[in-house]
Amino acid sequence: MVDPNQVAGLEACAANDSPDGCLYGTGLYKTGESAASVDDTFRGPTGTLEVPQRFLMGPGPGNANPRILAAQTLPLLGHMHPPFLAIMDEIQAGLRYLFQTSSNYTLLASGTGHAGMEMAVANLLEPGDTVLVGVNGIWGERVADMAERFGAKVVALHTEAGTALSLADLTAAVELHRPALLFLTQGESSTGVRQSLAGVGELCRRNGALLLVDAVASLGGVPLFADAWQIDAVYSGSQKCLSAPPGAAPLMLNERAMAKVRGRSSKVRSYYFDLLLVGDYWGWYGSRSYHHTGMVSMWYAVREALAIVSEEGLEAGWARHDAAHRQLWEGLIQLGLEPFVAEERDRLATVNTIKVPAGVDWAALCKHAMDVYAVEVSGGLGPTAGKVWRVGLMGYNAKPANVELVLAAFRSGLALQGFTGGVSAAAASA
Amino acid sequence: MVDPNQVAGLEACAANDSPDGCLYGTGLYKTGESAASVDDTFRGPTGTLEVPQRFLMGPGPGNANPRILAAQTLPLLGHMHPPFLAIMDEIQAGLRYLFQTSSNYTLLASGTGHAGMEMAVANLLEPGDTVLVGVNGIWGERVADMAERFGAKVVALHTEAGTALSLADLTAAVELHRPALLFLTQGESSTGVRQSLAGVGELCRRNGALLLVDAVASLGGVPLFADAWQIDAVYSGSQKCLSAPPGAAPLMLNERAMAKVRGRSSKVRSYYFDLLLVGDYWGWYGSRSYHHTGMVSMWYAVREALAIVSEEGLEAGWARHDAAHRQLWEGLIQLGLEPFVAEERDRLATVNTIKVPAGVDWAALCKHAMDVYAVEVSGGLGPTAGKVWRVGLMGYNAKPANVELVLAAFRSGLALQGFTGGVSAAAASA
Repeated sequence: MVDPNQVAGLEACAANDSPDGCLYGTGLYKTGESAASVDDTFRGPTGTLEVPQRFLMGPGPGNANPRILAAQTLPLLGHMHPPFLAIMDEIQAGLRYLFQTSSNYTLLASGTGHAGMEMAVANLLEPGDTVLVGVNGIWGERVADMAERFGAKVVALHTEAGTALSLADLTAAVELHRPALLFLTQGESSTGVRQSLAGVGELCRRNGALLLVDAVASLGGVPLFADAWQIDAVYSGSQKCLSAPPGAAPLMLNERAMAKVRGRSSKVRSYYFDLLLVGDYWGWYGSRSYHHTGMVSMWYAVREALAIVSEEGLEAGWARHDAAHRQLWEGLIQLGLEPFVAEERDRLATVNTIKVPAGVDWAALCKHAMDVYAVEVSGGLGPTAGKVWRVGLMGYNAKPANVELVLAAFRSGLALQGFTGGVSAAAASA
Repeated sequence: MVDPNQVAGLEACAANDSPDGCLYGTGLYKTGESAASVDDTFRGPTGTLEVPQRFLMGPGPGNANPRILAAQTLPLLGHMHPPFLAIMDEIQAGLRYLFQTSSNYTLLASGTGHAGMEMAVANLLEPGDTVLVGVNGIWGERVADMAERFGAKVVALHTEAGTALSLADLTAAVELHRPALLFLTQGESSTGVRQSLAGVGELCRRNGALLLVDAVASLGGVPLFADAWQIDAVYSGSQKCLSAPPGAAPLMLNERAMAKVRGRSSKVRSYYFDLLLVGDYWGWYGSRSYHHTGMVSMWYAVREALAIVSEEGLEAGWARHDAAHRQLWEGLIQLGLEPFVAEERDRLATVNTIKVPAGVDWAALCKHAMDVYAVEVSGGLGPTAGKVWRVGLMGYNAKPANVELVLAAFRSGLALQGFTGGVSAAAASA
């Protein structure tokens, strides 16, 4: 039995205030540390948080499914506990279904959609690599910024806001620049454009490039077949069509992309995002090692979101998003509004961009929608700022009642501003 | 009024399956995309998630406070909505209290504790800078890894596992190497050592170095006065003494640290962690701009955690952790166990390291504690692997009932292995 009195002064402390004996009595302070007094002028918030209930019908986050929020109240598990590792396995299976891939390499980046973007870019590019970035809105610009920080040579291929890149233009650019990586945004939430991925995977394989796709605003809302379409890497976010809170980024790499990661001649310029390390936490390489502490509640939420996707089925979910998109546009056209994206074939179902008519104050309409209906309708972003409204129809929010509420907010907001879409107010209300 | 039939084929689509007319009828597929069929062999999880209830008495995550988990069920707000920005303001105020600083520069990194570490290292070091890393366990090693990835020159100052670095050794090393940055871990969770910060801030100022402190396992559990102790930057995690889920990393920089960030000659090698951008989302520079989508539910949780800290008061919280630490050791010593950290002055209250006695199977005891009591007690990590158990007393878990449960698990687990701490079993049970 150890003599308590011989354990380095532990027992003596309670009765001894001498700095030499047990270091400031209570042991609160370590050698020589000054016991500054707590400054209550910095006192933080108190009381229980309350937040208003809103309909988040902008480009995201959308409203979370209550079943998903409820999953976040489940008790925490340790980040290496077998039941938690089993949940990670379920998430990986759910991601394989969502991405339509047989790849072993799926995971959640521990951060928002931007973390997925940075993880993909950081791992798939080495200093000196050329990356061809399709820019049809702000996401391409952001990837270009990231790629430059990681030392890559960026070639940007622009298309006018509201249009998609053509396969012909992509082909010419890939053949000219021979990039290590081609980046495209499937659902460009700043412009409401859906980029066709037809033929792009094949183009990349013919030319020795990897294809990286941003599917943050589109995944789960519109078709994506990672294997059949030969997409080498793709990432998304949790707060769009998955209807979970923001904070986790689904990511997939296939074997071609993993060959690049494994064959790197330089370390990834990030510990947090290094897939050779993070992947080993997710069991990619046949074992499990601690890299960082998994985001327990957040991953519960994503697991639940993926279960909801599996239970509904992807085709049913895509059809639901498409129906909501059509319902929205039927109503908007009745109100005299027009799509920003000229070609129907380029329109994204999940984020809809609506031209602001001449003489209408877009911000006043957004304020009205929020004040009266608690409905979020967003303005433009980047190239569309001031030119459009953006309406998101994603996941839990892609349903008739939400669309009707958005239309009611537009109808009333436009009427307040005297806009009748070219017909008289009387005729419009008839 | 716009003629619906002139809006790029929208109305025509429902009745027209021709690829030329409205692109595959339903509009689900974009130009030329092949409609692969969904492969249900990838079907993900179904049904509602269930997880076991455990007492997480290892080095973290600890159990979340139920009030904090409940906050995560509140409806989502948009990441730029004024009520959400007000919550971010509350978080910043709560962090100022927690860090005891008047600095304007507090935020949550959108990731786990490692994200806070990487954000600090990425912003405070430029390629070619020298960083002096105090290594008293694995966290210093990890910072060294990160710093090298960002191009810094790393000088490691080691101390034996279970001991803290002395101010004399730190002074000699700072004066010799003249680092741009000194890194120390206040609560080294791999060894159970609490590093004294006495005099270190002053040392750094005298020598033109910044002081960066890892307080992941200590913040809220033991005293830290960022301003009074002249700490230039400090980060922590949400899942330790704050008792929130993992996923957000409190971070503070003072004006000295911000001068380094503002005066950089090179861009931060990360978009996601660039404080010149992220800080503008948190209002550091007088405005608010969108950088990434804030982690809405997670930040609700941290806001609630900070309110709980403010309501209890820091001194009361520190005293509660200290009392739990003393209660634990009184019990452990009765069981014949000894602390791994020889000097009482170096012992961390929040993560306690206990020597595994000769002849005792540490893993069997952990398994017993989990199987019988649903209590997590951890083994060692890095330099302490196989040598110690680690018991966390953090936040919501730092209370008498939890300590008693841990002691019961040890008592029963040791008895099963026939360990009596040098006294006979009969005497021990008397």
